[in-house]
Amino acid sequence: MRLSDVAKMLGGSLDGDPSADIRGLAAIEDAGPSELTFLANPKYRKFLDTTGAAAVLVPEGADAATLRRKGGPALLRVADPYRAFLLLADEFYPPAPEPAPGIHPSAVVAGTAVLGKDCSIGAHAVIGDGCILGDRVSISPGSVIDSAVRIGSDTRIMENVVVKSSTRIGERVTLHPGCVIGGDGFGFTPKSDGSHEKVPQRGIVVIGDDAEVGSNCTIDRAMIGETRIGRGVKLDNLIQIGHNVVIGDHTVIVAQTGVAGSTRIGEQCMIAGQVGIVGHLRIADRVKIGAQAGVSRSLGETGGTYSSSPAKEHRRAMRIEGGIRQLPEMITELRALREEVDRLRGSREGTSTPSGEKDPS
Amino acid sequence: MRLSDVAKMLGGSLDGDPSADIRGLAAIEDAGPSELTFLANPKYRKFLDTTGAAAVLVPEGADAATLRRKGGPALLRVADPYRAFLLLADEFYPPAPEPAPGIHPSAVVAGTAVLGKDCSIGAHAVIGDGCILGDRVSISPGSVIDSAVRIGSDTRIMENVVVKSSTRIGERVTLHPGCVIGGDGFGFTPKSDGSHEKVPQRGIVVIGDDAEVGSNCTIDRAMIGETRIGRGVKLDNLIQIGHNVVIGDHTVIVAQTGVAGSTRIGEQCMIAGQVGIVGHLRIADRVKIGAQAGVSRSLGETGGTYSSSPAKEHRRAMRIEGGIRQLPEMITELRALREEVDRLRGSREGTSTPSGEKDPS
Amino acid sequence: MRLSDVAKMLGGSLDGDPSADIRGLAAIEDAGPSELTFLANPKYRKFLDTTGAAAVLVPEGADAATLRRKGGPALLRVADPYRAFLLLADEFYPPAPEPAPGIHPSAVVAGTAVLGKDCSIGAHAVIGDGCILGDRVSISPGSVIDSAVRIGSDTRIMENVVVKSSTRIGERVTLHPGCVIGGDGFGFTPKSDGSHEKVPQRGIVVIGDDAEVGSNCTIDRAMIGETRIGRGVKLDNLIQIGHNVVIGDHTVIVAQTGVAGSTRIGEQCMIAGQVGIVGHLRIADRVKIGAQAGVSRSLGETGGTYSSSPAKEHRRAMRIEGGIRQLPEMITELRALREEVDRLRGSREGTSTPSGEKDPS
Repeated sequence: MRLSDVAKMLGGSLDGDPSADIRGLAAIEDAGPSELTFLANPKYRKFLDTTGAAAVLVPEGADAATLRRKGGPALLRVADPYRAFLLLADEFYPPAPEPAPGIHPSAVVAGTAVLGKDCSIGAHAVIGDGCILGDRVSISPGSVIDSAVRIGSDTRIMENVVVKSSTRIGERVTLHPGCVIGGDGFGFTPKSDGSHEKVPQRGIVVIGDDAEVGSNCTIDRAMIGETRIGRGVKLDNLIQIGHNVVIGDHTVIVAQTGVAGSTRIGEQCMIAGQVGIVGHLRIADRVKIGAQAGVSRSLGETGGTYSSSPAKEHRRAMRIEGGIRQLPEMITELRALREEVDRLRGSREGTSTPSGEKDPS
Repeated sequence: MRLSDVAKMLGGSLDGDPSADIRGLAAIEDAGPSELTFLANPKYRKFLDTTGAAAVLVPEGADAATLRRKGGPALLRVADPYRAFLLLADEFYPPAPEPAPGIHPSAVVAGTAVLGKDCSIGAHAVIGDGCILGDRVSISPGSVIDSAVRIGSDTRIMENVVVKSSTRIGERVTLHPGCVIGGDGFGFTPKSDGSHEKVPQRGIVVIGDDAEVGSNCTIDRAMIGETRIGRGVKLDNLIQIGHNVVIGDHTVIVAQTGVAGSTRIGEQCMIAGQVGIVGHLRIADRVKIGAQAGVSRSLGETGGTYSSSPAKEHRRAMRIEGGIRQLPEMITELRALREEVDRLRGSREGTSTPSGEKDPS
Repeated sequence: MRLSDVAKMLGGSLDGDPSADIRGLAAIEDAGPSELTFLANPKYRKFLDTTGAAAVLVPEGADAATLRRKGGPALLRVADPYRAFLLLADEFYPPAPEPAPGIHPSAVVAGTAVLGKDCSIGAHAVIGDGCILGDRVSISPGSVIDSAVRIGSDTRIMENVVVKSSTRIGERVTLHPGCVIGGDGFGFTPKSDGSHEKVPQRGIVVIGDDAEVGSNCTIDRAMIGETRIGRGVKLDNLIQIGHNVVIGDHTVIVAQTGVAGSTRIGEQCMIAGQVGIVGHLRIADRVKIGAQAGVSRSLGETGGTYSSSPAKEHRRAMRIEGGIRQLPEMITELRALREEVDRLRGSREGTSTPSGEKDPS
């Protein structure tokens, strides 16, 4: 695509060679001589001097820092570089086509299941007794939907997903490949002989509209009642959600985090990767938790930021980590002080004791 | 169900309105006005004053703390509130029906496989050559049982599980959806050119009676010999068990923990979530390990409790964590001491040096 | 197998009973009276005195420490004990047979897919539109290969794997059961109402020749461009690789580690288990990272070793951990110093102030 055509498509003003041939898009650090990139975040401005891109989308009100340098990339000024970039992404990398409506002949769909309009059921998928699917639901190959599951319209369930009985899934939800929704919660009571008796897990999982669950995540059914994933919640891959957990609307959780049973997380929280949260806690709304944190008490302050294991208020944790880095020097200093204090005490005893009894010199 | 009928069913004595309509069960913190809950653990007694439940199961020998308050929930006195609650769980939330015996027409069962009585093989399941299944084994849809696997009676293998060749599984075992049993252990020897040569993984996995393996867990086959999961072991979700690991009977491990190759864990251990245990260690019986601990040496003391990373004896770890929390103040105090000692030394040098040589004043 | 036959097969010289019956192999710590083991690593020599093995493979140039003790195991001297052991592993534990070439009648292979010679497509596998497979590719039961995937010759894809559209996989690659290749990267932009808009994920995953990906791993497709797994890379189980990550050739990563988006890891790195690496970092070649480390900055030193969370140069981290272990004693010492300094200051004020102005006594 000629750069002049790109400019026309986006309605932007071009400073550079209109005949340049744009063959793809890339991040500003990675872009090569036939690629276009964008600059939306001012902290990446330094890359303007080094990028190998043919052209860069920059904001319309460009200041001196975004003036074109000689031999540098063409600049294409647009109202919103990131939006423009997404438009071009659709042009250069069109989305994979949605699966065509219809039931693959190898799929096994129970006679008692009810499907809405234009659903797509992939090869070897299984839909159990009493399931109710909305319109345009797509179930990819190899996924197993157990009995009495309800799935809202426009929800997409990717390959080899397992959804156990009585789960309720909202509209426009995406379940990525290999995730397991509604497996048994982990509950056992110890017996006197050291063995354990299983606590029956008879509750369900409820997933709100517009939620997204990453590949190979596990979300356990409640013991009784519901494990609840709120509207618009985004879960990355390999996350574990225990039984009876409640996650508030629009909370985002990064990969490999685990939340133990009965903990309630507020709305719009941001939880980084590999975090562990123990059971029966309350996390307030808009709380931020840093990577690898270990949360062992409730975090009641709305909008608070926490990190470290065990988790602490973030600025406090940073000060403590600063102290930890100084520990070897602290030990050296402590020994030096000890020696000096011992010497001082010795000399004090030598100079301040009028009779000189304790000072043999 | 009328509360009087609940009381009759449980053989308990009722203090409250017998006509109350009970529609479900809930935890004492969560219960609403048509729900029944229970109080077994004395530490939850405070919730008796705030619960919104219609009725609470309490122990027969109820003391003053469990007397009924005005306007509070009805109290139903029974010998064992938790047992009574489980009975009611079966009444209000009957277990999902077991899959009916039989082989689904879409399942692929090798001619050389031997199935016991009343097995249930789900849609699209695969049973390989030479597998031997006991009676009433159920294999859910989408699971793949490779060749020469032995499975004991009454074992249930949930959806999309993979069991690789020659695995031996006991009786009454449950494998939850998506877990992978008997994948290759992780063994590679470095070559001089920086690449690696695979060490063949020819051993097997053996899982004892009554064990339970969580969703999306991975248990690797031994290099040679066996990776062994003891009787009654309970593994939560997303746990990694390396090759040649041995886990003793009735040990319980919480989600996202990893155990590296050849480590032997004793019986009746309790290992919390996100713990990492390095390879070739020995963990004694009844050891407890706290969440996110990193175990890098053998733990030989039976019944010991450990936490932190690297793992330490738990009380020691708590004292150390107490120290870590004080680090910023320790640094301030250390600086103050340094200044005071410097001042003391200065004044000592001023007062204790008889000749005054070092003191220009 | 008689021990004399083992010696003949390996061309080794035997010191011990040639008629001993060898029925299997085992590690030197575990071997029993009808098993053979090997001694390659000198640090295991101590086990020669305690092993219950019938025979031990030892290096030809055996020194005094490997002389045969009375009543001890037979010694079989060979040029390379480890190689000899691998030969015997093939004899005693022959590898599971490769799946026979052919397409299982229950597999669903798109008419537009192109398969090389002697491919094996297992039961219920799915091969989508436009896929191109090399020669002798094996796809095990239950795996789903989405559209336009390219797979090199001799690559093996185990059971219930998901490979999403346009992924490119090299030759001789192994994907272990349950892994998910090419799921969406985790990218969302916050909106003013607290909800999030999905950033389209239109790139692909590229996996180099001879790479191995463990069970239930997740490797996300790039936002645009490629997520790249280098040649000979070995990934253990349950690893998360974010979008646009690049992993250099022959790097080895142990189980449950996570690498966040756009990070580039060098060649021949060794990354232990449960490590977390944040996004947009650069890790140099041959870097070693210890278990449970949390890497939050780029590691630019080739061959450097790092550990702890946040990650530090390893020797420094060891010194700091040494300090952490001393914290309770440091606090005691700090209090003692404070008391002594206060006492010293008090006595100094008493003895060193000539005029007595500051000393009311």
